[in-house]
Amino acid sequence: MYHQGIAQIRQELGDASVSTDEDDIEEHGYSEWSTSNSSVRPKAVVRPTSTQDVARIVKICSRYRIPMVPYGAGSSVEGNFSSTHPGVCIDLSLMDKIVEFHPDDLDVTVQAGVNWTQLNESNELKASGLFLPLDPSPTAQIGGMIATNCSGTNAMRYGTMKDYVLSLTIVLADGSIIKTRRRPRKTSAGYNLNGLFTGSEGTLGIITEATLKLAVVPSDYSVATATFLTVKDAADAASKMIRKGINLAACELMDDEQMKVINKSGGVGGKMWEELPTLFLKFSGSQQNIEDSVRLAKSVSSSSKCQTFLSAKKKEDMDSLWSARKQALWACLAARPEGTEIWSTDVAVPISRMAQMIEESKNDAMQMGLFSSVLGHVGDGNFHQMIMYDPKRPSDVANVKGFINGMMHKALEMEGTVSVRRRTIVVPEICSALIRKQGEHGIGIGKKVSRRPLMECQRHMMK
Amino acid sequence: MYHQGIAQIRQELGDASVSTDEDDIEEHGYSEWSTSNSSVRPKAVVRPTSTQDVARIVKICSRYRIPMVPYGAGSSVEGNFSSTHPGVCIDLSLMDKIVEFHPDDLDVTVQAGVNWTQLNESNELKASGLFLPLDPSPTAQIGGMIATNCSGTNAMRYGTMKDYVLSLTIVLADGSIIKTRRRPRKTSAGYNLNGLFTGSEGTLGIITEATLKLAVVPSDYSVATATFLTVKDAADAASKMIRKGINLAACELMDDEQMKVINKSGGVGGKMWEELPTLFLKFSGSQQNIEDSVRLAKSVSSSSKCQTFLSAKKKEDMDSLWSARKQALWACLAARPEGTEIWSTDVAVPISRMAQMIEESKNDAMQMGLFSSVLGHVGDGNFHQMIMYDPKRPSDVANVKGFINGMMHKALEMEGTVSVRRRTIVVPEICSALIRKQGEHGIGIGKKVSRRPLMECQRHMMK
Repeated sequence: MYHQGIAQIRQELGDASVSTDEDDIEEHGYSEWSTSNSSVRPKAVVRPTSTQDVARIVKICSRYRIPMVPYGAGSSVEGNFSSTHPGVCIDLSLMDKIVEFHPDDLDVTVQAGVNWTQLNESNELKASGLFLPLDPSPTAQIGGMIATNCSGTNAMRYGTMKDYVLSLTIVLADGSIIKTRRRPRKTSAGYNLNGLFTGSEGTLGIITEATLKLAVVPSDYSVATATFLTVKDAADAASKMIRKGINLAACELMDDEQMKVINKSGGVGGKMWEELPTLFLKFSGSQQNIEDSVRLAKSVSSSSKCQTFLSAKKKEDMDSLWSARKQALWACLAARPEGTEIWSTDVAVPISRMAQMIEESKNDAMQMGLFSSVLGHVGDGNFHQMIMYDPKRPSDVANVKGFINGMMHKALEMEGTVSVRRRTIVVPEICSALIRKQGEHGIGIGKKVSRRPLMECQRHMMK
Repeated sequence: MYHQGIAQIRQELGDASVSTDEDDIEEHGYSEWSTSNSSVRPKAVVRPTSTQDVARIVKICSRYRIPMVPYGAGSSVEGNFSSTHPGVCIDLSLMDKIVEFHPDDLDVTVQAGVNWTQLNESNELKASGLFLPLDPSPTAQIGGMIATNCSGTNAMRYGTMKDYVLSLTIVLADGSIIKTRRRPRKTSAGYNLNGLFTGSEGTLGIITEATLKLAVVPSDYSVATATFLTVKDAADAASKMIRKGINLAACELMDDEQMKVINKSGGVGGKMWEELPTLFLKFSGSQQNIEDSVRLAKSVSSSSKCQTFLSAKKKEDMDSLWSARKQALWACLAARPEGTEIWSTDVAVPISRMAQMIEESKNDAMQMGLFSSVLGHVGDGNFHQMIMYDPKRPSDVANVKGFINGMMHKALEMEGTVSVRRRTIVVPEICSALIRKQGEHGIGIGKKVSRRPLMECQRHMMK
């Protein structure tokens, strides 16, 4: 069955489009970035170069009942591209053309395999003063960014991927091709298919082309950091800034442990950092606007017992101040003792509950003897607690599992949404989280549950 | 069948919840605001006061196969609440409670029948400095606003209704109750059901409760107007402002004819207006930010041969400058000759094509001897051409139909989206517009087409 189908794809698309090379297959089946990998590998990797190619592949797979998994950059962290059954991996990275660019309409049409950093660095976009304001993994491709509804630190100012999709070309499971909309920005008619396919993680169809809104590159930007005695003070300051409507482009929190990790890894940005809970703030707009906002942010910080407020005026100072935030994950990886792994949690709660949630989670981890550091997208009420543990020590593993379960219960009590890893012990009343109540990392295979617990969750949610 | 079902609703919900009063039924079946009314009337109007009530009504209707139409304020303009078959009108206006308000999380949970102006004027919201930044009809209710994905002049700055929905409680066709999400702002897991139900116009379920994001009331705002010799100059100026990323809260265009109509109706804002194509601009933010933006907008306008640029500093001057925009529709209604009707078109094109689209449509109307005026949401590429005609004169009716058909063809050639009235002659290649390519007014019954032309449109769209 596989053989026949794959042979037919080879026949229709040409030998070069189909790979059964072992290394190629391994690369498309496993990622050391991902928290969830399956043991299954695809039987072949196919590389279409057009929507029509994808449609032909899908028609063949459909006829021979061969499972299909679309693949972009493979940078997701939840096994979103892992195969659950042996089948065909459809790698869209050769579909990397900018199809149409309309600077006066602030939109661009691209194939799914276009990389967002290359798009923003392209001569056309550079010259136009426009950009796509998302910032997921630098390697990410547009198709995967839409399929996972990606975000990043810019989300506070610019929103997430769903806010930039004007139209999609999609190949459905039977190989038919649909286009969701035309180019105009405004429309209020018909079902919002863009919104439905964005974040659907390849389960409804394969995105092959997208027309995206672009934003105007701000004329200036600036960066500031503010340190506080406690996480609560830092979160309070962030909350006040948001409530006052201060024009923030990003608002990120790192706790004292995370700052220690930064220093432990040798410091970044050419300096050692105060080991206190720290807010990283970005501002953008006109120079006057930025100065206003920085002044307001400083005054709000003072009212929450800010220890040191640093704001950058020169480009290199900005990069230096932001570097600690940018390199947080690398610092964690570099600083962990030999043999340990990092378990990254992904919880979101209403903004007002964030300080309490972080403080209690830190205490819980400490009481269990687990080392953890915190990185928060405060503007969204979403944070990651990085827990270092030794997967070979049963007591470590048990502690982590116990901790994660406790954290999820706490988040749900605070009307929050949680995200867990597959091997976590799942208790029925919290699995709803697996399907519809999560942070920012998507589902992938890591958080998929069977139908039964899902129904139990539904009942739990309605309480 | 009707009788049994209605009797059972009466029995379960109490006599006061069910009305078969003729006037009440007529009010829920016909609206002089709407461009599309059906001749069908509901058999009864029922008034639930809770989600549970709605579920009970729906279960009964489902059992007896009685058609249901949810009803809010009845302010939509496309017959969105009209009955296509005699059945039950479910009027949600008694469900007008603010359920929960979380000022620190910038969100509010309300029942579907809450009126948005009353919500914004409520003591709780007033005191918090937060507001729901949509502005559809002042009478509109939250349920209908979500069901139609409403917008208004604030859309340029704040987006449309879909951008404010955090969670929905919905009664499905079988009477089961679902809740789409919890309260956190961020989530990237599971299908985006909020996006699917928003704009679905009651076809997927009845929205009974919603948790909505709120925005911070800007510390200051200001208004300016700029007049130009031609619509093209005005649209060019608007386009340049958008491309430069000037911080505009609203950007509306009225053509020379529309300004004449304003003067003809006696003038508004206590003055007579220049009868030239005019941009109406709103700015909001900090005072410094506004001054910057006004200065930039003025300089851009000059470069497009602006005739007069007026900016307001005092509250009463702002209101006066904005009044012409605010009262445009009333002025049209007041100025039309006895016996004439107004046919309002609803077209959106990519922003760069807007000037050409408006100019050609104005010329076409003039050549057909039709009087028309133009009102444009320039920031979105969406505009309405108001055509006055005498529905009793066959030549007028034929001209209007011919004009609308020509306009739709033109919009589609410009990659635009169109919206038509049911009695318009529909040619197959443009009916796709009826379903998925439209301006801002939604579908209602006015733009519904049968399945066959829809499939023809699909083919046309893929060309």
